[in-house]
Amino acid sequence: MPDSSLLEAFPTPTATPFVIEHTSEQFTSLCPNTGHPDFGRVVLRYGPDRTCVELKSLKLYYQSYRSEGIYYEAVTNQIRDDLVALLSPTWLQVVTDWAGRGGIRSRIIATQGDVPDAWVGS
Amino acid sequence: MPDSSLLEAFPTPTATPFVIEHTSEQFTSLCPNTGHPDFGRVVLRYGPDRTCVELKSLKLYYQSYRSEGIYYEAVTNQIRDDLVALLSPTWLQVVTDWAGRGGIRSRIIATQGDVPDAWVGS
Amino acid sequence: MPDSSLLEAFPTPTATPFVIEHTSEQFTSLCPNTGHPDFGRVVLRYGPDRTCVELKSLKLYYQSYRSEGIYYEAVTNQIRDDLVALLSPTWLQVVTDWAGRGGIRSRIIATQGDVPDAWVGS
Amino acid sequence: MPDSSLLEAFPTPTATPFVIEHTSEQFTSLCPNTGHPDFGRVVLRYGPDRTCVELKSLKLYYQSYRSEGIYYEAVTNQIRDDLVALLSPTWLQVVTDWAGRGGIRSRIIATQGDVPDAWVGS
Amino acid sequence: MPDSSLLEAFPTPTATPFVIEHTSEQFTSLCPNTGHPDFGRVVLRYGPDRTCVELKSLKLYYQSYRSEGIYYEAVTNQIRDDLVALLSPTWLQVVTDWAGRGGIRSRIIATQGDVPDAWVGS
Amino acid sequence: MPDSSLLEAFPTPTATPFVIEHTSEQFTSLCPNTGHPDFGRVVLRYGPDRTCVELKSLKLYYQSYRSEGIYYEAVTNQIRDDLVALLSPTWLQVVTDWAGRGGIRSRIIATQGDVPDAWVGS
Amino acid sequence: MPDSSLLEAFPTPTATPFVIEHTSEQFTSLCPNTGHPDFGRVVLRYGPDRTCVELKSLKLYYQSYRSEGIYYEAVTNQIRDDLVALLSPTWLQVVTDWAGRGGIRSRIIATQGDVPDAWVGS
Amino acid sequence: MPDSSLLEAFPTPTATPFVIEHTSEQFTSLCPNTGHPDFGRVVLRYGPDRTCVELKSLKLYYQSYRSEGIYYEAVTNQIRDDLVALLSPTWLQVVTDWAGRGGIRSRIIATQGDVPDAWVGS
Amino acid sequence: MPDSSLLEAFPTPTATPFVIEHTSEQFTSLCPNTGHPDFGRVVLRYGPDRTCVELKSLKLYYQSYRSEGIYYEAVTNQIRDDLVALLSPTWLQVVTDWAGRGGIRSRIIATQGDVPDAWVGS
Amino acid sequence: MPDSSLLEAFPTPTATPFVIEHTSEQFTSLCPNTGHPDFGRVVLRYGPDRTCVELKSLKLYYQSYRSEGIYYEAVTNQIRDDLVALLSPTWLQVVTDWAGRGGIRSRIIATQGDVPDAWVGS
Repeated sequence: MPDSSLLEAFPTPTATPFVIEHTSEQFTSLCPNTGHPDFGRVVLRYGPDRTCVELKSLKLYYQSYRSEGIYYEAVTNQIRDDLVALLSPTWLQVVTDWAGRGGIRSRIIATQGDVPDAWVGS
Repeated sequence: MPDSSLLEAFPTPTATPFVIEHTSEQFTSLCPNTGHPDFGRVVLRYGPDRTCVELKSLKLYYQSYRSEGIYYEAVTNQIRDDLVALLSPTWLQVVTDWAGRGGIRSRIIATQGDVPDAWVGS
Repeated sequence: MPDSSLLEAFPTPTATPFVIEHTSEQFTSLCPNTGHPDFGRVVLRYGPDRTCVELKSLKLYYQSYRSEGIYYEAVTNQIRDDLVALLSPTWLQVVTDWAGRGGIRSRIIATQGDVPDAWVGS
Repeated sequence: MPDSSLLEAFPTPTATPFVIEHTSEQFTSLCPNTGHPDFGRVVLRYGPDRTCVELKSLKLYYQSYRSEGIYYEAVTNQIRDDLVALLSPTWLQVVTDWAGRGGIRSRIIATQGDVPDAWVGS
Repeated sequence: MPDSSLLEAFPTPTATPFVIEHTSEQFTSLCPNTGHPDFGRVVLRYGPDRTCVELKSLKLYYQSYRSEGIYYEAVTNQIRDDLVALLSPTWLQVVTDWAGRGGIRSRIIATQGDVPDAWVGS
Repeated sequence: MPDSSLLEAFPTPTATPFVIEHTSEQFTSLCPNTGHPDFGRVVLRYGPDRTCVELKSLKLYYQSYRSEGIYYEAVTNQIRDDLVALLSPTWLQVVTDWAGRGGIRSRIIATQGDVPDAWVGS
Repeated sequence: MPDSSLLEAFPTPTATPFVIEHTSEQFTSLCPNTGHPDFGRVVLRYGPDRTCVELKSLKLYYQSYRSEGIYYEAVTNQIRDDLVALLSPTWLQVVTDWAGRGGIRSRIIATQGDVPDAWVGS
Repeated sequence: MPDSSLLEAFPTPTATPFVIEHTSEQFTSLCPNTGHPDFGRVVLRYGPDRTCVELKSLKLYYQSYRSEGIYYEAVTNQIRDDLVALLSPTWLQVVTDWAGRGGIRSRIIATQGDVPDAWVGS
Repeated sequence: MPDSSLLEAFPTPTATPFVIEHTSEQFTSLCPNTGHPDFGRVVLRYGPDRTCVELKSLKLYYQSYRSEGIYYEAVTNQIRDDLVALLSPTWLQVVTDWAGRGGIRSRIIATQGDVPDAWVGS
Repeated sequence: MPDSSLLEAFPTPTATPFVIEHTSEQFTSLCPNTGHPDFGRVVLRYGPDRTCVELKSLKLYYQSYRSEGIYYEAVTNQIRDDLVALLSPTWLQVVTDWAGRGGIRSRIIATQGDVPDAWVGS
């Protein structure tokens, strides 16, 4: 099941604001209704305050969804909440893109704080 | 014929505002003049207020247009109206792209509420 | 239902062998099990002997599958048989590509006569 | 010669503002200096007020430029003027893209009213 | 674990030889050394003799690898063996493409019988 | 109307066999049934014997089809015949690709002599 | 050497503001240090006031840089200055993109007046 | 190790503000934890004040990271700091894109001054 | 320096012939003349006899070229020789693609045994 | 003018046959009729016998065409002849692709010896 205790942070290398984006093309969870696997891409963007998420820990955290039955909308908001709790960032955005089920593909966008205009819809 | 009673909603998993986008590449209806089939892509974007549209019900709703003679402009506005009635969303946008007839391809965009700038033209 | 009587032929403009290819991106039929629509692309290639298929009649013939419940494999072989019966071509190839159902997309290739090497797998 | 009398309009299906875009990849006219053919793409976007342009009439109108010797800039402004006269739209934009002549390809953009920011440069 | 009993076959609709290709973009198994997930695409091509593999059963069979620790080479040969046992096809080819691990991406190709030249390397 | 007298040839610069390919993205003629314009791409390939076609004359020759009502198949064979008459080449191939009419796009291939395998289907 | 006297202008066809964009993929000059050729793309955009640049004259003007040793930054600003002097436009933008030298490719953007937001970074 | 003394500047060719962008597809450094090489793309954009960075010196400066163990975030901020110290630009932006490690690819964006909206997220 | 002792092999999972392809986008060595880094892609294809190359060992072997001054042609033949010595494969092919130096990009292909036609030029 | 004395060769690193391909995207010469510049891509492929062409010398040789008025066909055959004279290769192929003049783009292919099937038409 999703395990936010896997996430680790490290101090930012600079006090100057900057932007970090991590894209995983290999996210998979299960449909809570049918049990069939869902496959998606997860983009995480944020303005770090004092800490950054450690990359390997992020990978293991994403893998903890592998056997979880959970809706697209819930996955996206859960990732947002867990990373906000870890990082207390200036702003944060999670974008998930899901390969089609029944001929319809989906994108869910969850945010915290003021996402700069440049990333709102991307 | 288009049947909005096929649409179902479920509660949003979070009170925090977020964005949902569903893209169907496989929409088809009939030209009301000639009876020939039209083929299009339908993108639905919205900010959920308290409910989200259930994905399978959306698919069946789109399929209910299969034997309907209806213009591009009317399809797009009808989908907008039916989903606004179902969801009462913060904002909603329907974008339809139609494969060419007579060498001209078309896009129709119908909205409700204040669509964030990031999506107005996309 | 599929109606091969819609197909019309016209004489080739030359006795010199040549090649004709027609590609339709807008083919749709129904799954015989679930009744859900299938969407595909149909490529027809052939070496005309004495006649060519008339383009508008081919379009109407393809449209006659719109309400038919029929498997991918059967659609492809049916189109092959109907066009061979119409044209008695030197060789003929029908390639269908089907948008994914359950995450798997499919291609079926049916042929008659000796398809030149250049087109066997394309 | 360009014949705006070919253009026809029909009433919008809704009083709610929406956006219509028609793209023709197959526009051709003649260079007024050399008589050589020019080939271009024409994108028409507008916010309908009470009427929409009928698609087949638009196609015939575009075809009326086929034997006309006319500059890129004049074509674009002429189309803008003729459609504004027909539709009295809330706003309207015509974008023409011209295949290269002498290694230089060109785009001309003519507008009427306040084109939403989302489309100004696209 | 991989479960070939999930696979089902149905009779071919025609005695004329033809070609079937099924592509799944959503295959996942586990690395037997590290336990980390592997993600791949599986292309199955064959010339049916008397039976075809049923599409939904193929999907469930692929899903049975989800929790299996198994090497790329073994996955590919196992799928080949299981489908040959099911179908006794004229010829059969399995191509797997694996997203990069350590900056190297891999393709494995396993075959049975005489694969037509057109598909040997594709 | 198509005017082969526009075509001019010049001597090849070498006695060693080589290959020439000219691609025009801007071919247009008229449908003989409806009078509507057709738009296509024409690829000409040949092995010159003693002469090559002069490029500007080829362009003017193609332009001479602009007001001609003529079928796809006839255009392609006519170009083949006119260039064979001009050049007496070792081999020659004309490939025309036509933008869709009624949702179906077409390719016609006419040849003279032994086209090398590498170009038969391209 | 760059010769702005090659540039010619003609009156705009309309008093209504519009936008013109000319793109040349075939610009070449010389590196002033090494003498090696540089290859680039030049995009010119402007809002005409009373005159437009004549296309063939623009092409000849660009060709006049062919044997000039000149830096990327200087080329871009020189073109901007010469066209502003010719046209006195409402606004004008020159974007040059240079194929890589030593593994680094470059873009230089020079402007005059208020470039609309839509084109600032494109 | 990173050596900012390799960087050289030259005076801008004009007092008019303009924009410079240099993109290197061939940046490599080492992961400080594992010692494995990282590969990335570095985009540098800035509004020059009085000086521009000399292109060959930039290339040598980037090469000085080849044997350095350093995190993505630190590389990006270090490049920003070194170029700001060299150029005192009006504004400056460094965007690094890193090929995936463990299935996750990353982008880091560091800036100085007011980056124009057009480039904030690109 | 290149160190073939890093390479490890493991037994093939099947006695049936099959094909393995590994693609690394992240190869780098040094130009022996200038000392500047070269960047390339390496594709390794082979028909295993009794053993396969272990993927992590291949990665470390490629990394051992990082500080080596060596020509494109020599790199490619060296990799071929080292892997043939390790694997004694049925056939083996090494294709290297090198990012441009001085505006020219290069591909080198070295082989052992009879490479199947399908891969000779790819 | 074209200067084959610029070309230099070095010994092949191995007696085993292999393949070399060099692609230049930045070739330019002049049209002998109009004096206008032509821009093209040149691909050189060969099987070395005892020597390889040195890359920098090849670049300088290509640059020597910059001010030469010469036809596409002659350029291609000249490069073939000069490199065959330098290298006495097992086989050699020169493919030139020329950006469009008057809406027609061209490819010329000149060869020496038996070009392997895999490259004949590519």
